[in-house]
Amino acid sequence: MYKVKVYITLRESVLDPQGTAVQQSLHSMAYNEVKDVRIGKYLELSLEKSDRDVDQVVKEMCEKLLANTVIEDYRYEVEEVVAQ
Amino acid sequence: MYKVKVYITLRESVLDPQGTAVQQSLHSMAYNEVKDVRIGKYLELSLEKSDRDVDQVVKEMCEKLLANTVIEDYRYEVEEVVAQ
Repeated sequence: MYKVKVYITLRESVLDPQGTAVQQSLHSMAYNEVKDVRIGKYLELSLEKSDRDVDQVVKEMCEKLLANTVIEDYRYEVEEVVAQ
Repeated sequence: MYKVKVYITLRESVLDPQGTAVQQSLHSMAYNEVKDVRIGKYLELSLEKSDRDVDQVVKEMCEKLLANTVIEDYRYEVEEVVAQ
């Protein structure tokens, strides 16, 4: 079994209106030290072992479904979980 | 300057219909090794140094605005960025 953590973020050049809204809310709550907020997605997947390479599978899933690579970047971590 | 990464996830006991939908899509694309998908949020904040403790500030912001602690858990990492 593998536990995969996927982080999907907007590319640097893409505006993040949701982040801007959160930043404005934080300012209105007197957290003026906040200078930038960017909001992305965080996915946790559990994968069974198969005859395919786990790295290859995760990359494909990100490219095809999980991330929109035109405007988003992704990175992931794979951790092998040993059944007790 | 601090760079803060916040991970917000649904609590274990809370259903995740968005995750279930993504899992079903992955199955329909023949990624049958995927046994579970949970979707959360990932935030990157830039904070200026202030006379308040950064840990305390981040905790407060999470509790008050960023996470809904009734159904969500959060964790965060603070990294100090030194201006070049």
